[in-house]
Amino acid sequence: MAKSNGCDKCNDITGASTLDLLNQDLAKQVRTAYDRIEDRGMSACLFGSGGTCCRNCNMGPCQIIDGVESMVGICGATADTVAARNFARIIAAGTASHTDHAREMVRGFIATAKGETPHEIKDVDKLHKMAKIFGIETEGRDKNEIALELGEKALAEFGQQEGELAMVKRAPAKQQEIWRKVGVVPRGIDREITEMMHRTHMGVDQEYQNIMLQAARCALADGWGASMLSTELTDIMFGTPTPKRAIVDLGVLKEDHVNVTVHGHEPLLAESLCLAAEDEEILALARKVGAKGVNLAGVCCTGNEILMRRGIPVAGSFIQQEMVLATGAVEAMVVDVQCVMQSLAQVVKGKHTDIITTNYRAKMPDAIHIQFEEHEAYNSAKEILKHAINNFKKRREFYIPKDKKLDVVVGFSHETINYMLGGRFRASYRPLNDNIINGRIRGVGAIVGCEHYKYADDVHFKIAVELIKNNVLVLATGCAAQALGRRGLLRPEAATEYAGDGLREVCEAVGMPPALHVGSCVDNSRLLIALTEMVNEGGLGEDISELPACGTAPLYMSEKAVAIGQYFVSSGAHVIFQNLPITGAKKFTEFIKGGMKEVYGACWDTEEDPIKLAQKMIKAIDGKREALGINKKQDRVLFDMAMRRDLEGRTLPDTGCGSGAH
Amino acid sequence: MAKSNGCDKCNDITGASTLDLLNQDLAKQVRTAYDRIEDRGMSACLFGSGGTCCRNCNMGPCQIIDGVESMVGICGATADTVAARNFARIIAAGTASHTDHAREMVRGFIATAKGETPHEIKDVDKLHKMAKIFGIETEGRDKNEIALELGEKALAEFGQQEGELAMVKRAPAKQQEIWRKVGVVPRGIDREITEMMHRTHMGVDQEYQNIMLQAARCALADGWGASMLSTELTDIMFGTPTPKRAIVDLGVLKEDHVNVTVHGHEPLLAESLCLAAEDEEILALARKVGAKGVNLAGVCCTGNEILMRRGIPVAGSFIQQEMVLATGAVEAMVVDVQCVMQSLAQVVKGKHTDIITTNYRAKMPDAIHIQFEEHEAYNSAKEILKHAINNFKKRREFYIPKDKKLDVVVGFSHETINYMLGGRFRASYRPLNDNIINGRIRGVGAIVGCEHYKYADDVHFKIAVELIKNNVLVLATGCAAQALGRRGLLRPEAATEYAGDGLREVCEAVGMPPALHVGSCVDNSRLLIALTEMVNEGGLGEDISELPACGTAPLYMSEKAVAIGQYFVSSGAHVIFQNLPITGAKKFTEFIKGGMKEVYGACWDTEEDPIKLAQKMIKAIDGKREALGINKKQDRVLFDMAMRRDLEGRTLPDTGCGSGAH
Repeated sequence: MAKSNGCDKCNDITGASTLDLLNQDLAKQVRTAYDRIEDRGMSACLFGSGGTCCRNCNMGPCQIIDGVESMVGICGATADTVAARNFARIIAAGTASHTDHAREMVRGFIATAKGETPHEIKDVDKLHKMAKIFGIETEGRDKNEIALELGEKALAEFGQQEGELAMVKRAPAKQQEIWRKVGVVPRGIDREITEMMHRTHMGVDQEYQNIMLQAARCALADGWGASMLSTELTDIMFGTPTPKRAIVDLGVLKEDHVNVTVHGHEPLLAESLCLAAEDEEILALARKVGAKGVNLAGVCCTGNEILMRRGIPVAGSFIQQEMVLATGAVEAMVVDVQCVMQSLAQVVKGKHTDIITTNYRAKMPDAIHIQFEEHEAYNSAKEILKHAINNFKKRREFYIPKDKKLDVVVGFSHETINYMLGGRFRASYRPLNDNIINGRIRGVGAIVGCEHYKYADDVHFKIAVELIKNNVLVLATGCAAQALGRRGLLRPEAATEYAGDGLREVCEAVGMPPALHVGSCVDNSRLLIALTEMVNEGGLGEDISELPACGTAPLYMSEKAVAIGQYFVSSGAHVIFQNLPITGAKKFTEFIKGGMKEVYGACWDTEEDPIKLAQKMIKAIDGKREALGINKKQDRVLFDMAMRRDLEGRTLPDTGCGSGAH
Repeated sequence: MAKSNGCDKCNDITGASTLDLLNQDLAKQVRTAYDRIEDRGMSACLFGSGGTCCRNCNMGPCQIIDGVESMVGICGATADTVAARNFARIIAAGTASHTDHAREMVRGFIATAKGETPHEIKDVDKLHKMAKIFGIETEGRDKNEIALELGEKALAEFGQQEGELAMVKRAPAKQQEIWRKVGVVPRGIDREITEMMHRTHMGVDQEYQNIMLQAARCALADGWGASMLSTELTDIMFGTPTPKRAIVDLGVLKEDHVNVTVHGHEPLLAESLCLAAEDEEILALARKVGAKGVNLAGVCCTGNEILMRRGIPVAGSFIQQEMVLATGAVEAMVVDVQCVMQSLAQVVKGKHTDIITTNYRAKMPDAIHIQFEEHEAYNSAKEILKHAINNFKKRREFYIPKDKKLDVVVGFSHETINYMLGGRFRASYRPLNDNIINGRIRGVGAIVGCEHYKYADDVHFKIAVELIKNNVLVLATGCAAQALGRRGLLRPEAATEYAGDGLREVCEAVGMPPALHVGSCVDNSRLLIALTEMVNEGGLGEDISELPACGTAPLYMSEKAVAIGQYFVSSGAHVIFQNLPITGAKKFTEFIKGGMKEVYGACWDTEEDPIKLAQKMIKAIDGKREALGINKKQDRVLFDMAMRRDLEGRTLPDTGCGSGAH
């Protein structure tokens, strides 16, 4: 291996830590995705990349060439139909993934309410808020009783066959009107996935605009349904994130500890591991094998979940999962579901590391399977940790990139943003809206999604810096957020280093970073609520499409990212990706990048170059400012002492920073 | 067009009628699939055909070459993982299609129970049987009240989140045991589709055996869930099919009538059209434009539904849909969902024919959309017919292949088979089992599924004749059944012409054809019940895997066919297709074609050559006979008078045939 610069596209691989590790002899023995992408030696199929390869029936596969009459499908399906079907199935698969994750969380929530797990109902305030949305009586009732009813009603939303999902009514009223008018309010969660798969079957829906209506309904069932349920119920059970300091990158691994990394998306097991890692029996066992303790570290979105709620360090993002193992310092990587490379078990071949799969839905050749039982959560977690501890003595050569860990401040739930800017005693989005209206903050840019190996890894960083420089507040989730963390943008100091004057003033006054880590990929639902709160606060239009806000998932890898993009667009937020598999179909592309705007007030766009992408986001934000009439240049008023006093009490707690002014 | 023999693979196109039509100048102006398959001038992508093209994330598309280390996916996914995921997604899409169809039928059933449709609860006996399965009290209750409760309980099965589907308990006890042991009993219908889509997302399930467990659960949710609900509730509402004579093929169109063809799968609208076509107002309007009346004719599975229940003629199967329009004699083709070629609207360009889409889930460019409202079913149907009648005067040149219509006897629900062989007063599968045990009938062969243009169209015929000749009773559904009809195998006379001695004797005694048309593609669930009845009757083993039975969907086109195949295999029935998109993955193929047998007692197989395929089916049947110990050659005993008397009263009613002995 160690062709660190061999692959043109991987020039800037995952920052300094990966490069450092790749140059070690130890890592050179390991084959990773960096090698595979080079070794494949063939470029990706243009029909597949362009969305016009149809495999939806056995008359094909048909490769379609738009505009060439003889190159439609054997059934007569055009490039537009085929690309729309493929795009819609991506959205169905992404929604299904979030849905199935959410279902597990709701089931874990119900078990918790019944006292069958080591967890408890932590956020009673949020429990009551959610109970109200679901029409559940809270007066004089025990929290577990309320939680049980909430859990059961939430579970019913997955199977609901008629009507509307409960949380649709959280959206701005005008948004709901649009959805009802065009008929895209989700009736249930699973049903919309099924209907999407059906409508993309051979010979069903062959009008791309109509296919995309169901794609909107399906995606909305994700954003305002499954993902939102997952976020909210996970918060109630494990605590709503609040700002905290933490560390990220390969350097979080400890040479004198048993290193256990948790990878995947569903934090049920990871939370149990957090509890069990402090169990006296476990600590004693660790000491017995010569370790100082168990060092839990996250990878990918399971990492984000425990980072946000517990400040547990994150060892790596999606793109780093193999590198984490290549250190030779990990005793076990415990995986649940989604984004877990099949290569992991090959990377650790010959090493002391075990890959432990834990979910019946996600097994892997050459891995060890220890089924995580939700009703036996604590014991399952202990069993896994004991397994890892046993491996510690077998650890041989290892290399942990020195000083390759970055300080971050994380935990920006939409509630945090609320009190952070609004003050603890009058939590409100008013100051955010005011700062947007007065121009200190130009708007809000969401950077979400994954990573992959097609484009250089500094894409997230470049986009974020361009946005921050231009006074756009960045909200980040998923692996994108981790990438910003590795580059130092999740520190309050980054405001001083990178932000434009207006944004810097606000960040410095509150002591917050210019890029806020909002959570995992299901937590993009927090952004929907944040945007809604901004609309409801007033002064920035009547629905999300009027807000000076724009989103991107530049290095999207997962089908979930497309589902997320689609629910943002359908909710009125403009979304720009680096690429989308639609380029082979002209009219469909025009519809996605333009026609959708007529329906939802927002559409998709693509731009490969990260700086140009950021500039497009800024332009979109400026367009909204123009339409709102808040684009006039205002005299810049520096924060004076009175304004600073006014912000008193809004500084970030528990982070050791943000004392008011740096 | 009219390259009738130009395409090697289409040498034997759809029998005589299509060939006749293709040779008319009229048809030469029309571009159909026969032209497109030739014009494409490129063979299908080998990666797609072989199952090893992965488009499930944006790091790809990755084309995998099994056994070449550098040609795994960028994530490390192997050929086996990728092929299994693709195969599983085909099953998910097929299941989703049947599910969404079934859901519409259940919703129509509920509306009917509420008196909101022109339909009624016709089969009270079946209503009570189903009520019992669902634990519904029937004593002293009105049929509509029972039906409403049944409909609501059925609808709940789609959204069910935990437990087991109600109809799973109809399966042989041993089958249920196997399913419970390996954990594949469906918990709900939509849930299994969602989980399947999730588990095939990048980085979730990467063990093909485990992926295929969920593929089994998903498919079982189709066969014993969605499809079975659709069949049974449609039967209750529109009547359980009983044997009747009818006609099929292009020649059923009438030159002096307004020809309205109904195409798709959901018979709700078609049934309303049947009622409305006899409405005095409609008849008067038809006469006013110079037509003798309205001639309704079916296409594809909507055709099968009204053929089975009403004896309405079928103008064409899937492969003939464009030819039906190419006659120039059709005033309107009314389509609902599934298997409707996008080319239809192009075929009728410049003609007087309208393509009328009727379902919000399935629109088509250049077609007319008239939304069918279930609560306004009769009026919707009349509006559509009026539209067609208005077109009659505009009909110009047309050509209806003369004498190209075949007599068929259809309507063989499993209840029919029951009383047909068992006698009206002691309905039972005993005589069928006895005839299998005594060797007159060697076993049962199911020929189901679609048609396409890859192989010659006489595949179904060749397989059926080979089976019949070897005393295998053929049960057929879907477009496969229509293909047998066009070739004359659905006539009682076919037994005399083609069947081996044993089968011929039984057919002649009862007056039944040697190939029985069992229904549409959702009606494959009837075969599950028929096989179960055979098991329960005794003497042929304890579960479906012991029965001398085998299935095939040779010319499979739709993803539904793979879902059907998978639920048959998972239910213990051996299934042989002509091809499957798995050839690029060795171990996965071995598992599908062998390993599955260890779990379910049955597996998949493939064989391109139709005669060899039939021989493989016979071999599989013989293997079961051997295992049952009923393979010893028995002295052939001709039916004597006593035996004939014993079969008295079992002859087919309403068909004008089967008077006991031909």
